[in-house]
Amino acid sequence: MSANFLESAKLGEEGRAIGLVAKAEGVGASFLRRQIATGRVAIMERAGGPPVGIGEGLRTKVNANIGTSTEVFDTCSEIEKARTAEKYGADTITDLSMGGPLEEIRRRIMEETTVPLTTVPMYQAVAEKGAFKDVAERDLMRIIRAHVDEGISSLVIHAGITLEMLEKLKAAKRVMGMVSKGGSFTSAWMWQNDKENPFLSRFDEICEILEQKNVVLSLGNAMRSGCIHDPMDEPQKMEAELNACLARRANELGVQVIIEGMGGHTSPNKIRDYVAYYKRKTDNRPLFVAGPLPIDIGVGYDHIAGCVGGSLAAGAGADYICCITPSEHLALPTAAQVREGVVAFKIAAHIGDSIKYGPRPEDRNLADCRRAKDWEGQFRAAIDGERAREIKRQNDTETCSMCGKYCALDLMRSYLQ
Amino acid sequence: MSANFLESAKLGEEGRAIGLVAKAEGVGASFLRRQIATGRVAIMERAGGPPVGIGEGLRTKVNANIGTSTEVFDTCSEIEKARTAEKYGADTITDLSMGGPLEEIRRRIMEETTVPLTTVPMYQAVAEKGAFKDVAERDLMRIIRAHVDEGISSLVIHAGITLEMLEKLKAAKRVMGMVSKGGSFTSAWMWQNDKENPFLSRFDEICEILEQKNVVLSLGNAMRSGCIHDPMDEPQKMEAELNACLARRANELGVQVIIEGMGGHTSPNKIRDYVAYYKRKTDNRPLFVAGPLPIDIGVGYDHIAGCVGGSLAAGAGADYICCITPSEHLALPTAAQVREGVVAFKIAAHIGDSIKYGPRPEDRNLADCRRAKDWEGQFRAAIDGERAREIKRQNDTETCSMCGKYCALDLMRSYLQ
Repeated sequence: MSANFLESAKLGEEGRAIGLVAKAEGVGASFLRRQIATGRVAIMERAGGPPVGIGEGLRTKVNANIGTSTEVFDTCSEIEKARTAEKYGADTITDLSMGGPLEEIRRRIMEETTVPLTTVPMYQAVAEKGAFKDVAERDLMRIIRAHVDEGISSLVIHAGITLEMLEKLKAAKRVMGMVSKGGSFTSAWMWQNDKENPFLSRFDEICEILEQKNVVLSLGNAMRSGCIHDPMDEPQKMEAELNACLARRANELGVQVIIEGMGGHTSPNKIRDYVAYYKRKTDNRPLFVAGPLPIDIGVGYDHIAGCVGGSLAAGAGADYICCITPSEHLALPTAAQVREGVVAFKIAAHIGDSIKYGPRPEDRNLADCRRAKDWEGQFRAAIDGERAREIKRQNDTETCSMCGKYCALDLMRSYLQ
Repeated sequence: MSANFLESAKLGEEGRAIGLVAKAEGVGASFLRRQIATGRVAIMERAGGPPVGIGEGLRTKVNANIGTSTEVFDTCSEIEKARTAEKYGADTITDLSMGGPLEEIRRRIMEETTVPLTTVPMYQAVAEKGAFKDVAERDLMRIIRAHVDEGISSLVIHAGITLEMLEKLKAAKRVMGMVSKGGSFTSAWMWQNDKENPFLSRFDEICEILEQKNVVLSLGNAMRSGCIHDPMDEPQKMEAELNACLARRANELGVQVIIEGMGGHTSPNKIRDYVAYYKRKTDNRPLFVAGPLPIDIGVGYDHIAGCVGGSLAAGAGADYICCITPSEHLALPTAAQVREGVVAFKIAAHIGDSIKYGPRPEDRNLADCRRAKDWEGQFRAAIDGERAREIKRQNDTETCSMCGKYCALDLMRSYLQ
């Protein structure tokens, strides 16, 4: 691992990782260094893989969640999902496993993939102890240290909620209450133990651990809405404010930060405003959104509805979007569903980038291949060319069997040239 | 069939169809009558099915294209696609068949579905004659009369292009030239015969035929862009202007009109402006868009990329969106792919309506069922509950196997209540 990026960037140094990310993104190294120094970009690293830059001015990145649940835990199947996510273009993977041998699952994901890996230590603590009351603060610190030592790239904590906010949440009378799993674990720990948020009270200590290994701190979003009829309310705004303070503090302590915000379920006519709100509140720090889902009745196709929400959020300035698979709200996804989710969100990221930065050269390349009837070129240029090739072959015809000899392009070619 | 809606509406009459549509849409009958009288809403009818209103102030409608090609023509398979499109919620169907027994295919679609049916007579003319030079104007008129007599609800002609526009198109040096199939047929007919557009020169005569059976005239969009790097150019604007004139003329002649516009491939940061352009040019007449696709590299998943474009277009004011299936640009779709396309565009229409009109009650209903863990209620409320049920069953667990006993909703329920 490199030296601490944030501290180096503050000192004006442009190390190897900055050079690699600048090249991959087509931006200047000095621009990138300034973005890192001001906390507007975070770089995630994994041993064996290229560093990944996330934040303002860079391409929108896609995270894929995988992991066993307490009901379904097949290690091999999760490893296959991790490989699938990487193969179809996920920029990062988050392991949310709660069932089966958690250390072994993480170790094998690390062996079989090279993209940055994120974990949520609270999940392991709850899986180990079973009851929230039995999770001690020292357990949380032990697990955080272990994950960092294993070489993870980023770590999620829900440090931005307080007992006061939980009271406000009770008063808010939402349709869906709280739907963040890590947020609900942290909240249950707080009210069952009648203690303040352990990630908040030990925040500086956690930052010290992360700083030593250059691990990115992801500030989780516990208060996100669970249906589009739950608008952004006081608890959500209070958490955003506290996370913004914590982000500044972490940056001071040499820790890079990603802010999770605004995701979940958000009416599509509000997405632009809410992204702007989070960006403004957090001095344009990297914004990570889950979805958001712009409608609720798409269940079974939440990857498609989420693709629309993710496109709108990315286009409005979100930097990092989290895949939703077709099985969201229904079941633990299969590897095939992970592929559907990753591709849908690669599409969303690309649409977001087309809104942020204008039409992209990748699309021009595909159009040139299409005009030239270069099928292999189209498959190479596509986000998932393997799927396109399969569909092309479903009818045994040389051309596209939609129009065949009455292809408009062919008909007009002789006239237009 | 009812009496002519447009003429009745101009006279202040609110007939049976207006009452049915007003009720289905939750709008006032007198508002709807005024919208029809000013050409802002068109009503399509089919014997045996409810009338469908399309235009400003109503829910966004979804059309599904089906039909054989010259390479793949299995009548049974097309009938299955038509049934599939209706089952999953297509508001209208367009039969684009060019291979096999065209009359029989149309007759069987009509027997097996009840939603409004649209045809493109030029397709049949070209399929019958083989060469554009052999298609006489009297053939086109004969086919138009035959389709109207058979009871179709709407008919597409590409009347808005002229020889002058084709010259401009040549000069425009687009990446993709012309990609509209009906547009390219009409253009090839024009330049091969060196004659003006037959649908334009016989426009009044065509309107007379449609007026008698209350068939809606859909003014096709030949000049739409075929890749996102082809912007809206002079030929496209000239066609839009001419179609706007023709729409006024048709309305004067008692024919309801839908304007096809702006679709195809459109950079996502232009969709809002282009929809506004078409709406303004056409005095807010019903706007039908194909897609649009906001990126080109989603091939194999164009239903998903198109869902984003369709959501943005509908949110910006488009009234009627045309499904794209996963097989777009690759192959004639299967019935399963028609289902994927229809559901993706039902999602787009619903997102568009949530942007136009704010969060919808259907989503609140699903959220209430989700909170209550009422799975059957969720499946009933979903756009495609059958798919949701299948996914729920993929793991043999009673609850959602994503979180199982660690469901955030359940954890927080006792605290928040």
